[in-house]
Amino acid sequence: MSEFIINFEPLGLRGKCKSNESLLECARWYGVGINSICGGTGTCYACRIQILSGTVSRPTSVEDRVFTSKELKEGWRLACQTYPVSDCTVNVPADSMTTLQRIQVEGLEKEVNPEPSFKGYQVEITPPSLGTPVADADRLIQALNNQHRLQCISVDIDTLRDIPGKLRSWDWKSQAIVRNKEVITILSQKSRRLGLAIDLGTTKIAGYLIDMNSGQTLAARGVMNPQISYGEDIISRINKVIKSPEVAVVIQRLVIDAINKLGTGLCAIAGAEPEKILEAVVVGNTAMHHLFLRLPVKQLAFSPFVPAVSLALEVRARDLDLNIAPGAYVYLMPNIAGFVGSDHVSMLLATDVWKAKETTIALDIGTNTEVSLIHKGKIATTSCASGPAFEGGHIKHGMRAAAGAIERLRITGDKVQYQTINGDPPAGICGSGILDALAQLYQANIVDDSGRIIDGHPRVRICEGQREFVLVSEEERNGGPAITITQHDIRELQLAKAAIRTGIQILLNTNLCSENDIRKVIIAGAFGSYINIDSAVAIGMLPSLPLNRFRQVGNAAGMGARLALISIKSRAKAQAIASIVRYIELASSPEFNKVFVQANYLGPYRITNK
Amino acid sequence: MSEFIINFEPLGLRGKCKSNESLLECARWYGVGINSICGGTGTCYACRIQILSGTVSRPTSVEDRVFTSKELKEGWRLACQTYPVSDCTVNVPADSMTTLQRIQVEGLEKEVNPEPSFKGYQVEITPPSLGTPVADADRLIQALNNQHRLQCISVDIDTLRDIPGKLRSWDWKSQAIVRNKEVITILSQKSRRLGLAIDLGTTKIAGYLIDMNSGQTLAARGVMNPQISYGEDIISRINKVIKSPEVAVVIQRLVIDAINKLGTGLCAIAGAEPEKILEAVVVGNTAMHHLFLRLPVKQLAFSPFVPAVSLALEVRARDLDLNIAPGAYVYLMPNIAGFVGSDHVSMLLATDVWKAKETTIALDIGTNTEVSLIHKGKIATTSCASGPAFEGGHIKHGMRAAAGAIERLRITGDKVQYQTINGDPPAGICGSGILDALAQLYQANIVDDSGRIIDGHPRVRICEGQREFVLVSEEERNGGPAITITQHDIRELQLAKAAIRTGIQILLNTNLCSENDIRKVIIAGAFGSYINIDSAVAIGMLPSLPLNRFRQVGNAAGMGARLALISIKSRAKAQAIASIVRYIELASSPEFNKVFVQANYLGPYRITNK
Repeated sequence: MSEFIINFEPLGLRGKCKSNESLLECARWYGVGINSICGGTGTCYACRIQILSGTVSRPTSVEDRVFTSKELKEGWRLACQTYPVSDCTVNVPADSMTTLQRIQVEGLEKEVNPEPSFKGYQVEITPPSLGTPVADADRLIQALNNQHRLQCISVDIDTLRDIPGKLRSWDWKSQAIVRNKEVITILSQKSRRLGLAIDLGTTKIAGYLIDMNSGQTLAARGVMNPQISYGEDIISRINKVIKSPEVAVVIQRLVIDAINKLGTGLCAIAGAEPEKILEAVVVGNTAMHHLFLRLPVKQLAFSPFVPAVSLALEVRARDLDLNIAPGAYVYLMPNIAGFVGSDHVSMLLATDVWKAKETTIALDIGTNTEVSLIHKGKIATTSCASGPAFEGGHIKHGMRAAAGAIERLRITGDKVQYQTINGDPPAGICGSGILDALAQLYQANIVDDSGRIIDGHPRVRICEGQREFVLVSEEERNGGPAITITQHDIRELQLAKAAIRTGIQILLNTNLCSENDIRKVIIAGAFGSYINIDSAVAIGMLPSLPLNRFRQVGNAAGMGARLALISIKSRAKAQAIASIVRYIELASSPEFNKVFVQANYLGPYRITNK
Repeated sequence: MSEFIINFEPLGLRGKCKSNESLLECARWYGVGINSICGGTGTCYACRIQILSGTVSRPTSVEDRVFTSKELKEGWRLACQTYPVSDCTVNVPADSMTTLQRIQVEGLEKEVNPEPSFKGYQVEITPPSLGTPVADADRLIQALNNQHRLQCISVDIDTLRDIPGKLRSWDWKSQAIVRNKEVITILSQKSRRLGLAIDLGTTKIAGYLIDMNSGQTLAARGVMNPQISYGEDIISRINKVIKSPEVAVVIQRLVIDAINKLGTGLCAIAGAEPEKILEAVVVGNTAMHHLFLRLPVKQLAFSPFVPAVSLALEVRARDLDLNIAPGAYVYLMPNIAGFVGSDHVSMLLATDVWKAKETTIALDIGTNTEVSLIHKGKIATTSCASGPAFEGGHIKHGMRAAAGAIERLRITGDKVQYQTINGDPPAGICGSGILDALAQLYQANIVDDSGRIIDGHPRVRICEGQREFVLVSEEERNGGPAITITQHDIRELQLAKAAIRTGIQILLNTNLCSENDIRKVIIAGAFGSYINIDSAVAIGMLPSLPLNRFRQVGNAAGMGARLALISIKSRAKAQAIASIVRYIELASSPEFNKVFVQANYLGPYRITNK
């Protein structure tokens, strides 16, 4: 009987599956919630999944009936009818999932006076006649300029195509949307004016639908970034594009389609139509920014790691196939460097930290972690390759922050108390749980400061040749597979923690500051919002400072995108931030190696040479 | 034995074909030159044609071998293998024609200081390093602004995609093309800067490739407008689009593809590449302008006949799928009214007639004829539906100006002397020949001033129930079909002549001028360049003025397009012309009927009431 590794995306949960076990059975065994009404008999068709890689059994006659041949070619199957023939990666689409992944869209809310890049004007036109057969668009522009003292000179080509029909159907009354002396769209007089802000993450995409008149968020929603099927981290996606340039087109299409769907979904919630979205703002790391725009990424992958462009951009939405109003633009916030993107600028903008008077550290923790030190009116920024461990990646029982993930835990004696997302039975462990586990193990002396698991605790055992600490045993899971933290997991976490701490430390050293000079630490990002600061301080990932100096701000990048959407003054600030930031390349720092080795130890960062 | 009417496009020549006669035999009989090397045995595959409408015999095994099933579906056939089953319209592509239609691209040449809408700047950049890892595009803009004291702020998105690769392959030296503070393209330092001017006619498209540095024309070429398969005149094309809106997409695609091919062909002549074309200018009548941009045309077809837009437009070339430089624009000269387009503005610009001090008439004769009267510093313009007669349309033996067309003729007694294009055996009669024929028949009293053919001349006969005058008899054509002018043909010509003369007359009346006040008559357009002024005056189409007051200027619209391409000052003039022109709607003039009836008579226009 063969056994294969099945990787369930987008949860990021892995499990073993025997060749006579269906993918549905495997998913259940590991706590992946796939819909199934008929109990796996192939009659309800609810357990649709997509095979992204690997080989599985041939479609059954049931599946031949349920799917078109195109769908079968694309890998669509019923989980209850499908058996693995090799290791596989499986996509469980949102429709087939019993519970959805938690994707943070909340963050600090900030009041800003709406002052968008466009304005809407009510305009009424006298109909043409044989006596004055003036062209429709000319007549619109004349009326607009006369009635509102404007100096419009042009109309977008797509909007030109709409004007004759719309003006006639609206009895020559309309609302003209004007941007930089150009009519970019016309709407009916009572139509709402909407905007779309997008935080484009490597793993997740957060979208916000904004009423551009009030600045209020009408709807917010997160989805997975479908590019994940081309690699979990940006480096693997970039490498795939470098290897086969046609992947750039496919991978752009994936993210554009996802944003279009997200926009449609947000509009449905707000009872509106996507053609009323008059501008979009997108922030993201530099690689996501480049892949979204289909800019070359090769130069990002090789020293000196430069972006194709850092400047803020305004791109016509149709040039990217974004389905919003005809003539509308997408604003892209400026990047800072190859590995510090506009999402970090956005975060600095939203938190106002860029003009902090006291010494401040601001970090956005993710697969890549950006750190800024604001000190004496200057901003120094760096980027640390913290890896996917905090997203549950490369961790034996790691998973993303979805229902059933252990998100908090405490070790007391030989007991482990834990809390799971939604209170579901435990399925794995997500970033904040992993961080807690390491801190608890270190503080209970089960792991020493070099990261080694020490023998002797009743929950420490050896499995498949390495030590591991059992968080939930087989018995505690009623015979299900145990959830453990392995020696290898701890090494992964140490690398992540060391990368982040090295970034902080080198910024401090470069600016001749010490840990105690730091008055405030701002922590942004989904993972950063859920972590236990105590744990992060305990293992030495964050500086040893009083807890009241830390502030967890949620998705600040998304908030910054919303600010830039509704206010051109915020855009000017974003450009100012990007231009004053001094980028520090970690790898080129002479003390990098020394600091990184030191930062690998658990516990407070020690300045002494060891 | 059935007999069908075969319409050979783009020549516009019609002939009868028996059901046992191949289309190749029919073409030969009527003088349509289709290539055939094997003599119609189906072995040389040179006589490729396309069935545009009508039914023909099923493909033979030869054709099944020669064409793909897609081609067969599109109507591609070998003329020698194909027999008609109904009346048909057949497209003879340029590749299959022994001789090409004469498409005028020449016109007056005018010296203008090149001052395009863009400028090219040589720029050299220091490569990025780990110490200054500034993004490629940011570095380019900084260097450009510093080295040339510019204020560039953005780079076109398509050009952004090119920058990292091109800068590296050119060792960081390039030529940046800047337009309105935007880098629209980068070229290698020594690359030429080119422009493309297009005169987009209903029947023909004339293209000019220009060196934007010197303003010189590097290559000029004309092609048929492939939209002809959707109707010879603009009204039929507009009606097809109104009936089925998807035709708008197809018909735009046709003309865009034709212009792309034309551009590639012109570049091949000049040894250049289309991506070095940094701007294009397109002029055309309002319908062609709208169909080119895929603007709605319904409002053009119904009173008050207004355009969607008259203003000059700048449209990104990629929004129209025009294959020129990334980021390049297409400039569209302003229109005047629904039936007076930018080609007329272009003509007024090129001839400088718009600032004429003396009273001047300027006309561009075509299927639609535009007439302007410049009088006391003002311009009044009208449009006359002169119909396709002068393009050979609706004339029994009419054809377009291609090899074998009778272009000049004289009647002396019972003899007809004629001259054909290229000196080929006569195949039909084109516009200038038709005009000569009518003038000669009228002057020889074979046709009276009401247009009636009078009996008694040896060449007058009755055929198929109507009188006709035999220009070339069956014997003179060695047994081929005779070439004649029928009573019906004369009625068509009278309508065309009357329409033009009514336009002139109403403009004169509206401005309280008389024929004798006219100091100059400027005649533009391909047909207008080839006509015998004597003949046009004799039948009363043009005013009875001394011949030295007439000037035939060739394709002035094409010249105007070239001026607008190389000089933004010319664009400002074009906008000024469009804004000062007073458009006179002929149909709304109270004296229209009276003048039109009068203008129908052959001979000088008589003011007396008759």
